[in-house]
Amino acid sequence: MTTDTKILSALRAHPDGVSGAQLAGQLDISRAAIWARMEELRKVGYDIEASPHFGYKLVDSPDALHADDLLARLGKTRVVGRDIQVFEQTTSTNDVIEKLARDGVKEGAVVFAESQTRGRGRLGRKWISPTRKGLWFSVLLRPSVNPQETTQLTVASATALRRAIKTVTGLSAEIKWPNDLLLGGKKVAGILTEMSAEVDRVRHIILGIGVDVNQDANEFPAELRGIATSLKIEAGEAISRAGLATEMLRELDADYTRIGAGKFPQLADEWEAGCATIGKNVSVQMGARLIRGRAEALDDDGALLVRTEHGHLERVIGGDVTLEKR
Amino acid sequence: MTTDTKILSALRAHPDGVSGAQLAGQLDISRAAIWARMEELRKVGYDIEASPHFGYKLVDSPDALHADDLLARLGKTRVVGRDIQVFEQTTSTNDVIEKLARDGVKEGAVVFAESQTRGRGRLGRKWISPTRKGLWFSVLLRPSVNPQETTQLTVASATALRRAIKTVTGLSAEIKWPNDLLLGGKKVAGILTEMSAEVDRVRHIILGIGVDVNQDANEFPAELRGIATSLKIEAGEAISRAGLATEMLRELDADYTRIGAGKFPQLADEWEAGCATIGKNVSVQMGARLIRGRAEALDDDGALLVRTEHGHLERVIGGDVTLEKR
Repeated sequence: MTTDTKILSALRAHPDGVSGAQLAGQLDISRAAIWARMEELRKVGYDIEASPHFGYKLVDSPDALHADDLLARLGKTRVVGRDIQVFEQTTSTNDVIEKLARDGVKEGAVVFAESQTRGRGRLGRKWISPTRKGLWFSVLLRPSVNPQETTQLTVASATALRRAIKTVTGLSAEIKWPNDLLLGGKKVAGILTEMSAEVDRVRHIILGIGVDVNQDANEFPAELRGIATSLKIEAGEAISRAGLATEMLRELDADYTRIGAGKFPQLADEWEAGCATIGKNVSVQMGARLIRGRAEALDDDGALLVRTEHGHLERVIGGDVTLEKR
Repeated sequence: MTTDTKILSALRAHPDGVSGAQLAGQLDISRAAIWARMEELRKVGYDIEASPHFGYKLVDSPDALHADDLLARLGKTRVVGRDIQVFEQTTSTNDVIEKLARDGVKEGAVVFAESQTRGRGRLGRKWISPTRKGLWFSVLLRPSVNPQETTQLTVASATALRRAIKTVTGLSAEIKWPNDLLLGGKKVAGILTEMSAEVDRVRHIILGIGVDVNQDANEFPAELRGIATSLKIEAGEAISRAGLATEMLRELDADYTRIGAGKFPQLADEWEAGCATIGKNVSVQMGARLIRGRAEALDDDGALLVRTEHGHLERVIGGDVTLEKR
C-alpha cells in the first residue's frame, strides 16, 4: 500500500477530520512528509481542508481516477483489485493487461484507462470510450477451469456489475445474454471475456468491462443514440466513477469467490431473475446458422438453453442474440 | 516466392540437371545472377554440381532447415505453409508465432527453430529440443470455430503427423489421446494446441509440434530413456528432417482442409484406427478428479468418451490419460 493510499484511507475513515500528528504516527513518517503528500494530492484534484482543530479533512475528490484512491476505497479483497493501475489513455485495457498476464502478473490485477483509442466489444466490434465519461477497465483472472466453463465468468460478471449499479445508482439494469446490461432497453454496459488457453486448460482470462457512466444523450454518436444510454441519463444525475468502480470490483471479487466455492448455481438463479432474455422469444445468429425459439434457462456452464419451434433444446454458447417482438 | 525457392524448386524438379540458360529464362534473371545464387546455396550446405553437359544438379542437401528450401519442397498448399520462417534458436516457436498472430499475420504461417531454450508441452511441462535433432515448429490457424471445437484440430494434427511419419519412414505410430504419437509404446512426437479466444469465438490457434527425429538413445536424458524414442532409433537410420517437415506440413494442410469441409468424422475414424487408447482401460486425471474406465470412442468435437466402471459415459476433453495394464 502506498503512502497516498494510506492517507486517503485514513481521510475516508475520518470524514470529520484527522490530525497530522495522528496520521504521522499511523504511517510512521514525519508531519512534514504528511503535509507534503497533502499538497501533492491537492494538485491532482483532491479538496483537502486543513485546520488546527480538526486536522485534515477530505471535502471532495476529483472525477479523475487514481489508483491510490481506488485501492483506498476498495480496502481488502480476496483476489480482484489486489493491484490497480490507471492509464490516461491506452489502445485497449485488455491489451495492457494481456501483456501483464504474459509477464506473469498475479490474478486480480486491474487496469483502468480514462480513454481508449481502440476499445473493443464482442465479435470484433468497436467500443467507444470517451475520456472520463465512463469506466473502461480490465481484470486478470487465472481460474482452474477448462475453456467450456468460462461462460460462467461472463454470467457472474453480469450479476456483479448489476448489483454494483443498483447499490450506487438505485437503478435496476436488465441482463441481456450473455454480456450486456440494459436500462430502459438500451445498452449501458458490456463485458468482453477473452482467454488464453490450451484445449483443456485456461491459462488466463481477461474480463474487459465498459460502462457508460456520465455521457449526456448528445454525447453519443448519432447511430448509437437509439440503442445506448448512460447511468447519468437514466439516474438524472452525474455518478461518481471512482465510487462505482470500487463497488464493481468488490462485487466482482465476491462473485469470483462464489464461483470458486462452487456456488455458480445461485449466481445463475440471480442472473435469470435479472435477465431480459429468459422467457422471451429470441433469434440467435451463430455464424451462418440462425436459431429461433424461446430462451428457457442457463445451464451449469452458463450456456443459454433455447427451445426451438420444433421443440428441440439448443445449447447456445455464443453468437448474437436478438429479442423478438412477438 | 524468393529466387532461392524458385532455384531449389527447379533443381528438385530436374534431378538430372537443368541448364543455367533455362533457369535464367524461367526466373527472368541473368545467368551470372543464377551462378551467384548457386554459390550462396553451396555456402549454406547445398551440394550443387555444375557441368557443361547437364547444367546444375542438386546432389545433396544440408541437414539444417532452410525456409526457401522447405517452401520449394512443399510447393502449393491451401493454407498451411504459405509462409515459413526458420530460426536457429528461440525460446519456443509458439512464442514467436504468438507474436506474429498478434501482429495480424495470416493463418498458415509456420515457424521452425533448430533448437528451443524453453520448449513446452501440455500442462506446463518442459519439452527438450536439442539442436537439429528433431522438428520443433508451430503453425498458426484462424478457423471459424468456438473453443469447444478446437479438440478436433488436435485430433486432426495427430492423424496428419502419423500419416507423414508412415510415408517418410514406413513406421506406424500409435496415437495416444489426445496429442501424443508413440512407437513401441514410447513417445516420439507431441502436439500442444494453444488458443486465444473469446468465450464463443476462437481468434487464433497455434499448433505447437515436437518430433524427436535423429537422436540416438544415449542422447535422451536418463529420465526419458524408458518413455521417449526417436524416429532414427526406431527406423534404424537417420531421417531427412526437411523431407519429414515438408510431408507433415502437406498432411496438416490436407487435414485442416478436411475439417473445414465438415469431414471431421472421417478423420475421427482414421484416428480411432490408429489409436492406442480406444478399446483400452484407462485412468484419466482431470485436475483433482480421477476417472477410470474403458475408452470407447471420440465424439464429434474430438473428446474422448470413457465408459466408467459404473456404466456412465464420461466426456473427457483433457487431463492426463494413462493406459492401464489390466
